[in-house]
Amino acid sequence: MRFLSFSKNGIHGIAVRDEKGIKGLLENAANYPGDLLTLIQKGAEALEQAFQVLNAADYLIESELEILSPIAQPPKIICVGLNYADHTSESPYEQPDYPTLFPRFASSLIGHQQNILKPQCSDQLDFEGELAVIIGKTGKHIQKDQALDYVMGYSVFNDGSIRDYQFKSPQWTVGKNFDATGAFGPDLVTADEIPAGAKGLLLTTRLNGEVVQQANTDDMIFDIETLISTISEAITLEAGDVIVTGTPAGIGFARKPQLFMKHGDVCEVEIEKVGLLSNPIVNE
Amino acid sequence: MRFLSFSKNGIHGIAVRDEKGIKGLLENAANYPGDLLTLIQKGAEALEQAFQVLNAADYLIESELEILSPIAQPPKIICVGLNYADHTSESPYEQPDYPTLFPRFASSLIGHQQNILKPQCSDQLDFEGELAVIIGKTGKHIQKDQALDYVMGYSVFNDGSIRDYQFKSPQWTVGKNFDATGAFGPDLVTADEIPAGAKGLLLTTRLNGEVVQQANTDDMIFDIETLISTISEAITLEAGDVIVTGTPAGIGFARKPQLFMKHGDVCEVEIEKVGLLSNPIVNE
Repeated sequence: MRFLSFSKNGIHGIAVRDEKGIKGLLENAANYPGDLLTLIQKGAEALEQAFQVLNAADYLIESELEILSPIAQPPKIICVGLNYADHTSESPYEQPDYPTLFPRFASSLIGHQQNILKPQCSDQLDFEGELAVIIGKTGKHIQKDQALDYVMGYSVFNDGSIRDYQFKSPQWTVGKNFDATGAFGPDLVTADEIPAGAKGLLLTTRLNGEVVQQANTDDMIFDIETLISTISEAITLEAGDVIVTGTPAGIGFARKPQLFMKHGDVCEVEIEKVGLLSNPIVNE
Repeated sequence: MRFLSFSKNGIHGIAVRDEKGIKGLLENAANYPGDLLTLIQKGAEALEQAFQVLNAADYLIESELEILSPIAQPPKIICVGLNYADHTSESPYEQPDYPTLFPRFASSLIGHQQNILKPQCSDQLDFEGELAVIIGKTGKHIQKDQALDYVMGYSVFNDGSIRDYQFKSPQWTVGKNFDATGAFGPDLVTADEIPAGAKGLLLTTRLNGEVVQQANTDDMIFDIETLISTISEAITLEAGDVIVTGTPAGIGFARKPQLFMKHGDVCEVEIEKVGLLSNPIVNE
């Protein structure tokens, strides 16, 4: 199942995608099944029932829709830094033997085709193509061999980073949370649609059509099972939480000369079997 | 006005406090005005009206109530590190000239008198007494001279930190987000009740009655106006967001010998005119 959140003329809706297009319902429809976060929180059966309802709905005209981030307000968005060895090598950091976690606040999220904002105060807007994992049920002290039972699905993420602000203090938070820099979507793809643990998937980031990052999800240092198990030793993972699993080498900050995104650019992140996330860059 | 959130026999409620006690309503009462986050999001008039309704309610028996964190799910909780010079001196960091921001996720919050959990996996549970600022209306690019217009009120915070986990990677996130380590409350005190910008207030942390931290809020390196202005250059601040403004010197990690909290301890954070937050420490 591939779910999407959208708005049409300012009214929110939820949809499913198949090979022919998008079928969905607006929130003012009598049989509207609820938003995606609520459905995830209700569990697998509610998602399956929603799929049946949406799958029986009419196809929508995609150009009339604004695609939103699949979940507007995840309870938490936990991002993983330094999770591909080649990216750690291009960074000023040593490889830690524990996941490097930092937050995204929901206020920074945008959806597919929505504008990534280059802020007024910086010219160092950088791309980071990443795989996002969406948690399907609440858990603490989750064992590694059970971790994938807690995954509801996957999506694509562009962890847009303002590099000079990221390094203004020892913590990266501000540089990772500028408004409209966290692109997420378009589809939330249920785990059964792709290989277990999202293993072996090609991840590609393109800036204006040119490949700037390419890696395989197998190259993650901490795989999804390890991330879920490690995080949940400390922090209760909740249905609807998002883990953004880190970016491979190729970021603009590490290039010589440096390559930052600017007004008029288009950045795409594509993950095999998961989807293609595309966003124009626009000045704030 | 001093607002509190509570539960009684599993039913949530909202209350106000005066010098004689706590007056409030359960959410199943006909004239229940809504939870505190919803009221903050509705604005000053809704809070004033809620106060009138709650102030006309009966006094509650405090021992029958479980005091909850004033806001269960703030849109964001942004914490400030290294914001008192004497604390930066006891840390392994140089003083940055930009605020050091890190997140709290709502899943780590507890209220007054609720148990701070010492996790199974660490014995390095440390205290950090702090002033919390609650944002009252949404804003971006807020000028310093208007910043206090965006403050709805203040509260007390104990930013319980698991030190070994905080330093397992370059980012502090995990050590700052263990379940039931972020104590918040008891009261959310509206800004008009205390000096502008919460200036000149004595902040004291006590462990088992012994003073372990003491400072004046005037000692903050980045004052509240500066924090709001600086953060909002990058990140939209929303009604209900919480900024936790940093801790002064005296943390257990920096002491010789080190002093960590353990099962059976009681940790109190008191801020003049704002309140007293007390929590027992209990093994997970």
